[in-house]
Amino acid sequence: MSIRVGVIGGGQLARMMIAPAVELGLELRVLAETADAPAALAATQVGDYRDEAAVHEFAKTVDVITFDHEHVPQPILRALEAAGHAVYPSADALQYAQDKLLMREKLEALGLPQPVWARLDSSADLEQFLADNGGRAVVKTPRGGYDGKGVRVVSSPDEVSDWFENAPLLAEELVSFTRELAQQVARRPSGQVRPYPLVETVQREGVCAEVIAPAPSAGTREVALAAEIAETIAEQLDVVGMLAVELFETDDGRILINELAMRPHNSGHWSQDGSYTSQFEQHLRAVTDLALGEPASRQSWAVMANILGGPLNADIDTRFAGVYEQHPTVKIHTYGKASRPGRKVGHVNAMGDDLDSVVYEARAAATLFAD
Amino acid sequence: MSIRVGVIGGGQLARMMIAPAVELGLELRVLAETADAPAALAATQVGDYRDEAAVHEFAKTVDVITFDHEHVPQPILRALEAAGHAVYPSADALQYAQDKLLMREKLEALGLPQPVWARLDSSADLEQFLADNGGRAVVKTPRGGYDGKGVRVVSSPDEVSDWFENAPLLAEELVSFTRELAQQVARRPSGQVRPYPLVETVQREGVCAEVIAPAPSAGTREVALAAEIAETIAEQLDVVGMLAVELFETDDGRILINELAMRPHNSGHWSQDGSYTSQFEQHLRAVTDLALGEPASRQSWAVMANILGGPLNADIDTRFAGVYEQHPTVKIHTYGKASRPGRKVGHVNAMGDDLDSVVYEARAAATLFAD
Repeated sequence: MSIRVGVIGGGQLARMMIAPAVELGLELRVLAETADAPAALAATQVGDYRDEAAVHEFAKTVDVITFDHEHVPQPILRALEAAGHAVYPSADALQYAQDKLLMREKLEALGLPQPVWARLDSSADLEQFLADNGGRAVVKTPRGGYDGKGVRVVSSPDEVSDWFENAPLLAEELVSFTRELAQQVARRPSGQVRPYPLVETVQREGVCAEVIAPAPSAGTREVALAAEIAETIAEQLDVVGMLAVELFETDDGRILINELAMRPHNSGHWSQDGSYTSQFEQHLRAVTDLALGEPASRQSWAVMANILGGPLNADIDTRFAGVYEQHPTVKIHTYGKASRPGRKVGHVNAMGDDLDSVVYEARAAATLFAD
Repeated sequence: MSIRVGVIGGGQLARMMIAPAVELGLELRVLAETADAPAALAATQVGDYRDEAAVHEFAKTVDVITFDHEHVPQPILRALEAAGHAVYPSADALQYAQDKLLMREKLEALGLPQPVWARLDSSADLEQFLADNGGRAVVKTPRGGYDGKGVRVVSSPDEVSDWFENAPLLAEELVSFTRELAQQVARRPSGQVRPYPLVETVQREGVCAEVIAPAPSAGTREVALAAEIAETIAEQLDVVGMLAVELFETDDGRILINELAMRPHNSGHWSQDGSYTSQFEQHLRAVTDLALGEPASRQSWAVMANILGGPLNADIDTRFAGVYEQHPTVKIHTYGKASRPGRKVGHVNAMGDDLDSVVYEARAAATLFAD
């Protein structure tokens, strides 16, 4: 009798769990938003994750519940747990990925390194924060932001006056960083924790464009510190499954925590082809409490480049064919989504022993999809 | 609109096409024997591949037809082609994988190296073959044999007297070989051919137990010869998709063709984790006429070990958990089959740069399944 893993949400993260679930012999079941969602192949129910009855109905058909996204409301999560369902990560853990203010408070209590921040209940609070932090700040809505949405860089409270009706807001210092990094760890309910290699993430217009694994020129201290930060968060917040910690590397050599994600994450897509254990396999092993796989890289370098939908909807298949033709070692991963400008519709992974050529391969392949 | 690939047969080979089909964005549809077949997740129809109406109904729902096995009768294949369906490999090509006598005749006409053989219409023919070949012979039923079935080593016609009612039979010399090898190639309809690394296959009791990629100590001449043999067969027999050529390496340094398979093959399972392009991805690329991927190895060595069902049906999940615990770099592939003694229920792949430890990892992991 295979273990039935239920995923709430049918997006590309659920889709990319299908392949390892088949190979591991787990039965993947997905509660998808629509019948043609990216994870449609494994969808056993179509429904809204905000519909408590639908979620309960789904929960009864699986042995463990996990997620494609972090949007399931806390009351529904709590009700699932109260009904005795295994929910990984738990409602307690997930709240810190759902609410950036809660996250900042918790990380501060844990003494972990993060940007200067403040809770803003009014524009007067922001006025004060700007005065204390060189006249500029990053203001975020605590909930619902992603890929640059719900984030503004401001130098005056007027620039977020429309947001204060939904206060509190979160203000953070505008960190002067040299680059962005991400540290993933996997954790089982029984406590085993395995860190992945530290990676460099490259954002363009607020969206992850490229990931290099491992992060070039990262020092021993930096690598150890990033792993320790992520392991501490996983343990102290009782995260089960994959945890991604997005980090800033600052001009003055510090590492500061930017955001958390408690699920497979774009910064770990390289692992599908670059690691002994992909983050999707690892997430499934973690939430079913199987022993974790080896997260180490299989070759010296892996580079992931996201494929963003261009203006033309129709010719995505032709573009894929072009990649196959010109880049026979590059691995393509499609999301089964219609192409729209700027929308992530897939990614490519390139692997090898020479960083320059691996970066070239990944970029050149992804570029075949641009404009 | 994704290309719809239809696979006739819902066994483990169809199952292992699911993962690459999802990532490539192809729509895999399977005509499965039963609703709980290994490839059940992608099954869109349950039916018998010998039922012409069922196969035609299935064919109408896909853009291209390919196979999990070679058992679809020639008349059904011919009818599909006559009705205008794209069938890869074609009926013409497949007949040589379906009938070992036809294969021997064709390979002889092509001048390719093979064991001494003869068509047997009567026991007198076998008497003569034994007299000409040192008193021993391998006798095979031309059709339907696999994993040692339909094959007997004999020294007298009496030992296959029950088979002559279904004559003709095939007799082959008992080749004195040092080891068995396998050479895979992929071929597209448009002609592109890519050979995989030559591998060594280890059989136990007529069943493939282990595959080492690449074949240790294979010389340049041997590697080139094996690739040339397989490429010649693919081209001359117009094979589309994956072709596996099983080979004997003889005591006196020759390479002789043993058997052919025109589909993904047990000798290529290592490629799922050991090559840039798994044979299952490559087969899908080939039958959809997409450019072929790079078949080269990603690390120095890959070893595949088959998992044979032990006497106990129940504890296969526990055994998997043991492998995860003790072998974190080994990749497990399950077939979704009930465990029965001697039945292939999965395999493990181990990869690395030191052959001894890779062999050890694969064997030790697979051994956890032996009773």
